[in-house]
This record gives sequence, structure tokens and C-alpha cells, in this order.
Amino acid sequence: MTRKHAWLDQVKFNADGLVATIAQDHASGKVLMLAWMNAQALEETLRSSQAVYWSRSRQQLWRKGEQSGHGQHVHDIRLDCDGDAILLSVTQKGGIACHTGRESCFYRRLQTDPSPTHWAAVEPVIKDPSEIYP
Amino acid sequence: MTRKHAWLDQVKFNADGLVATIAQDHASGKVLMLAWMNAQALEETLRSSQAVYWSRSRQQLWRKGEQSGHGQHVHDIRLDCDGDAILLSVTQKGGIACHTGRESCFYRRLQTDPSPTHWAAVEPVIKDPSEIYP
Repeated sequence: MTRKHAWLDQVKFNADGLVATIAQDHASGKVLMLAWMNAQALEETLRSSQAVYWSRSRQQLWRKGEQSGHGQHVHDIRLDCDGDAILLSVTQKGGIACHTGRESCFYRRLQTDPSPTHWAAVEPVIKDPSEIYP
Repeated sequence: MTRKHAWLDQVKFNADGLVATIAQDHASGKVLMLAWMNAQALEETLRSSQAVYWSRSRQQLWRKGEQSGHGQHVHDIRLDCDGDAILLSVTQKGGIACHTGRESCFYRRLQTDPSPTHWAAVEPVIKDPSEIYP
């Protein structure tokens, strides 16, 4: 397949045509989420400076914030050494990236104490999901 | 399949038995790399407090640093809302996570100026790879 953009050829999309994409908060450095992009999502992200992902569950482009209002303004797009992962530096609208109403999707921490080892929710819900998705 | 650890059941490994794992520097917040873990790698990471991944190219456990000396001491293991991505907070030995000798694997930035749009290497090589892998 010939692409119109040489820079897209350097991205190694997987067998599903997707590349893993990390969103990191531009100001705090907090890792907000991991999602997936196809070539169209990546092109649109570059063009619009708004994060656009590919929803694997809905099998369609996912313009982050289109339902929640919690869009991500993109400052910087990075590619890793293998070309199969992308890192976005973003400003997170509303300070909430997660559909659970938390700042970051990575809100569960693995704890061995108290036993047994478990994932503990360690970050607050900032806004109730029922308010985000009425 | 019955697992011996309930906490492992909450991790949604993909069809290849892997989960995407982000390593973030504990001190600077810099995102260092994205790699993959299977259940064994995750258990060993917890047990040893050293990052252990699954090498997809070599199809074997990859104890980070076993060849390069650039191991990662793990402070914190997080799971995301979907259960299909992990975030490690690490101290990176030698300050080099990337096999290219750079601090982070995400050293290429997408730039539109000068045209055409291209990935520009924007981070220095700290140590020549030939010295890392003699």
C-alpha cells in the first residue's frame, strides 16, 4: 500500500492497523490513558491538534471528548524507537481523562498489604460518570 | 483457566497473553518506553521489584537490563480502568531506557516545520549502543 505521507510509513501499525498511544498530561507529566490509533486517527490528530483514537469496542474513530466533553489538546506527538508506540503530550479538558470520572485511567495500584495482593483504587472520582454521560 | 492469584484475573491479557505496559520515570515523570508483559513477567516484576517484560521478537521473558545493565527498579504498578494496560513507576539504572542509548524510547517528535512533515530525533544519545551491547 502506498501512503501519501512518508512519515506515516515509519509508524508500524499492527495486524489490525493500530498503534498503541499513550496520553500524558503536558503540565503534570501524569500518564492519563493508553488507547489505540489507526492511520486516519493519527492524521486527524496532527491536523486538528485534538486527540483522535480508534475505538476497538465501537470499531470507529473516537474523537476524545465528543461525548464527555473531555477532549485533549495535543502539544506534541512522539514515536518510539520501534515505531510501534506513540506518546501524546496533551492538555486534558476538565482534568478528567477516564470514563470513571477520574483524572487518569491508571487509578488502581497493586498492593500486597494488606494481604492478599489486590488492585486498590487510589485516585478520587472527580465527577460522577452519570453527570459526564447523562 | 484457574489462576492462583485473584489479582491476575483482573488483568485482561490479549489473545497473545500479553498486556501493554508503560514504564515511567519515578523522579522526572518522563515516559521511558512501552513494552509487553505476560502473566509470568508481571508476577516476577511484583516479586522482584525489577521490570520484567515479554520480548515479542525473541519470544521469551526479558528481564530488563540483563544484557544492557539498564534495569528498572519498580516502585509502583498500576492498572487502567479497562484492565488492559499497566503503568510502572521506575527508577531507570544508568538513566538509559532505550536500546539506542537514549533516556527514553520516545525520542522522535513529529514536526511539520520544515516541510514535509517528519519524525525528528530530538533527544541525545547518552551512550553509544556499541558500548552498551559490546
